[in-house]
Amino acid sequence: MTNFQTPSSAPLRLAAVDLGSNSFHLLIVEADNGHFTELEKCSKKVQLAAGLDDHGQLDENVMIRALECLEAFGTIIDEHRVDRLRVVGTNALRTAANSIDFVVCAEQCLGQRIETISGREEARLIYQGASTAWQNDTAHCLVADIGGGSTELIVGSGTRPLALESLEMGCVVYTRRFFGSGDITEATMASAEQAALLELANITAHYRRLGWQRAIGTSGTIKAAAATLRAIHPGLKKGEITREGLVELRRKLIELGHLDRVSMSGLKSNRARVFPAGIAILSAIFKALNLEHMQHTNGALRDGVLLDLLSRDTRHDVRHTTLGDMQRQYQVDVQHAEYVAATALTLFDQLETPWALDEASRQLLEQAAMVHEIGLGIAHNRYHQHGSYLLANSDMPGFSLPDQLALAWLVQAHRRQLPEPPPEHRAALPSSTLMRLARLLRLAVVLCRARDSADHWPSTLAADDDSLTLTFLQPIPDLLRQDLALEQQWQQRSGLSLIIETP
Amino acid sequence: MTNFQTPSSAPLRLAAVDLGSNSFHLLIVEADNGHFTELEKCSKKVQLAAGLDDHGQLDENVMIRALECLEAFGTIIDEHRVDRLRVVGTNALRTAANSIDFVVCAEQCLGQRIETISGREEARLIYQGASTAWQNDTAHCLVADIGGGSTELIVGSGTRPLALESLEMGCVVYTRRFFGSGDITEATMASAEQAALLELANITAHYRRLGWQRAIGTSGTIKAAAATLRAIHPGLKKGEITREGLVELRRKLIELGHLDRVSMSGLKSNRARVFPAGIAILSAIFKALNLEHMQHTNGALRDGVLLDLLSRDTRHDVRHTTLGDMQRQYQVDVQHAEYVAATALTLFDQLETPWALDEASRQLLEQAAMVHEIGLGIAHNRYHQHGSYLLANSDMPGFSLPDQLALAWLVQAHRRQLPEPPPEHRAALPSSTLMRLARLLRLAVVLCRARDSADHWPSTLAADDDSLTLTFLQPIPDLLRQDLALEQQWQQRSGLSLIIETP
Repeated sequence: MTNFQTPSSAPLRLAAVDLGSNSFHLLIVEADNGHFTELEKCSKKVQLAAGLDDHGQLDENVMIRALECLEAFGTIIDEHRVDRLRVVGTNALRTAANSIDFVVCAEQCLGQRIETISGREEARLIYQGASTAWQNDTAHCLVADIGGGSTELIVGSGTRPLALESLEMGCVVYTRRFFGSGDITEATMASAEQAALLELANITAHYRRLGWQRAIGTSGTIKAAAATLRAIHPGLKKGEITREGLVELRRKLIELGHLDRVSMSGLKSNRARVFPAGIAILSAIFKALNLEHMQHTNGALRDGVLLDLLSRDTRHDVRHTTLGDMQRQYQVDVQHAEYVAATALTLFDQLETPWALDEASRQLLEQAAMVHEIGLGIAHNRYHQHGSYLLANSDMPGFSLPDQLALAWLVQAHRRQLPEPPPEHRAALPSSTLMRLARLLRLAVVLCRARDSADHWPSTLAADDDSLTLTFLQPIPDLLRQDLALEQQWQQRSGLSLIIETP
Repeated sequence: MTNFQTPSSAPLRLAAVDLGSNSFHLLIVEADNGHFTELEKCSKKVQLAAGLDDHGQLDENVMIRALECLEAFGTIIDEHRVDRLRVVGTNALRTAANSIDFVVCAEQCLGQRIETISGREEARLIYQGASTAWQNDTAHCLVADIGGGSTELIVGSGTRPLALESLEMGCVVYTRRFFGSGDITEATMASAEQAALLELANITAHYRRLGWQRAIGTSGTIKAAAATLRAIHPGLKKGEITREGLVELRRKLIELGHLDRVSMSGLKSNRARVFPAGIAILSAIFKALNLEHMQHTNGALRDGVLLDLLSRDTRHDVRHTTLGDMQRQYQVDVQHAEYVAATALTLFDQLETPWALDEASRQLLEQAAMVHEIGLGIAHNRYHQHGSYLLANSDMPGFSLPDQLALAWLVQAHRRQLPEPPPEHRAALPSSTLMRLARLLRLAVVLCRARDSADHWPSTLAADDDSLTLTFLQPIPDLLRQDLALEQQWQQRSGLSLIIETP
């Protein structure tokens, strides 16, 4: 199915679940030597975004519908004996006030962490999924994905995105907002389009400057637009949408006059009610970006998620690139960061078994060490808090929001007072694990304080439950002793015991 | 007195007041064609930091002492008919929990804004003040300034600082912390030194790497150390401190045994009680940075403040460089920023008289426009808040903390909901002015939304008290109309009236 570069290795079964605002999707593939073979693919129109009430709360019915779907997905995933699975949530989970309640239930149901991703990360993954179709062609390409809650627009060259945007407009949310009465009129269509144009206004000039040779659409709305058009004009190429065709679809929808009466050849009945809003958004995109044509393609978010998952074993891990970029932007002393990371991992390895730490924890500790000083790029004063702010709020390709929250917390916790751990299920790892990783990172920072890797004092670290003992093999300088005594006090304030033994 | 480059112009009388944690200083000069002539110079040991109680509150006695001093300064300033005055506060005002209470009284007393500056800005100004002595010599130079609450350490080349640090240690604060009993013993001196060494540990490696050909000391502690040493060894050069001399001073202080008995030739009696703590800090600096000698010089914070004040009229305004650096770091679309700034200033000029806006407001509006999009360098989502965070928390050479707070607030206020104005006296301008500037900036942003300066719709802006009327001279596009309607709604939510008139 998809072909790309990856080192030879045994076939791997990978699965991606996309908890979209309109549909949930499951994709299972076998990855063998750079080739994906599709094993299973299914979608379910859960319409999570439609279940958001006026207070932004997911209602009970939609939660039940969603959990049923995930239970079914779980059974399929089990049957295929998947090696790796990643579950991502998008706009509806980003915006729902009670998304954490849903996430807790859904994680129990799937036995797997659910990672809500940012809008721009969604855009990046969509582009990655779509661009496998033309990866060696570096002509500029526009990709549009109209979801239930948000719309992603990307301009890229080959597999490299040049501009990524996620706009707050989607077919489910706009149906609720502009077609609440059910009426499809010139006026309701025009208000939806105007709102979409206003969202697009901020990015139009930049996108037009970048330019593109072809416009590609992914997602159900665009697929349905192409299918309904082809039903009217069988001469059209499969998946093609033209500007005139779109005007025609718009006119037909207004003629039908009400959401209850939307029924067209090529349009699945469960898409019908959100189709007019989707067409309004698509029309606005055509207008703002001055498009004549758009071609639908099947690559989508879930394909991007799988590609990302596979690359995590290779030196192409996008997360590594992201952290490197941040180190550069904030002028981190990279050599020192690597020294702290190596020291932290040496400590980690000694407690991996007694503290039952896993590979994900090891990766997170290393990542935190790489960027623990980025806040210095803002100011020295309270730099751990600035670093934490940057990690919690930056666009970080390859990282989900829980990943970012865990990293941000660890960086904040690397000096001074140990903060309260983040709420369970918001961060990528449990609070108790994060607290343990923070203690390892803090010790590494103290041990590396002289910023001179030659100035090394061999030690061993042991844990008795949560009590740590750091034993030095030779006498240590006064300054290090005093620094460790301060660290003992900080940990004690959080009720944690740190014992320092020197000969 | 001091010679430096500046354009020819009429002589200007400049005054700087430095509200230090140990002493308050006043310096008045006449600046004529690049040359400073000192007209008045006085200092008063107010010991603000000694008046901080256990809760970090300035006590009443010290406030009274401080206000009396400012009243005296005010009289002198009036007598000299000063053209420009800048009053800066340092560590004690940065850390006092109730500093705002003091600032309000002190501003009334002086009839002038008081600007608390960050530790690194303090370091920059100290270096600027000191480096005029060797401006054309680009050999690396270390400058140390031991204040009452903080110690600044800078390495620079010529007038350019390469590393700026402000450490949380000072002679008044350390006297309180380590010599509370009054006893001067080997143990009390050693604890103070160890604490200072720990503060220095984070920067030592970096500073040593930069290196220096000479070490310069400013501030009273260092002046007193040199004077007492010369009283013992008349052969020493004026202002010179040697490593051995420092060991000797330390020994003598321990022999004296108690703060009440500190009395040495060359030491003013009002410096005596904070001298042992100052010597402990200076000894730690000599040890951490492996110094043999240090030379005292008179240039100091207040000289730097005056140089900065003078440069604000020229294209050497350091604030301009700072904003340019931030634009680069966060990859701002500079062309668009300039377009928004020009538009905002056009609106400003129309309301300058009816709204009684001054030059400081005009500068702030322009500055905010230059950096209103820096938050995009972190993430698109909520970028106005990220920009605001950066402006409130970054080290910004040339800006005081109230300047930064005003800028940060304006940038946050440039889109979406208008936030509550910052508390009075915390920001550089009154809340009512800030709110007006925010409305001008917002209108400029909407008018420039198309990001295309050719796409210009001529308009006039009028104000009837706080009600604004924007009148277009020709019909405007639908999108702009809708954008302005949204802006009307935002302003209405804050009880503000914005009327849009089109032909």
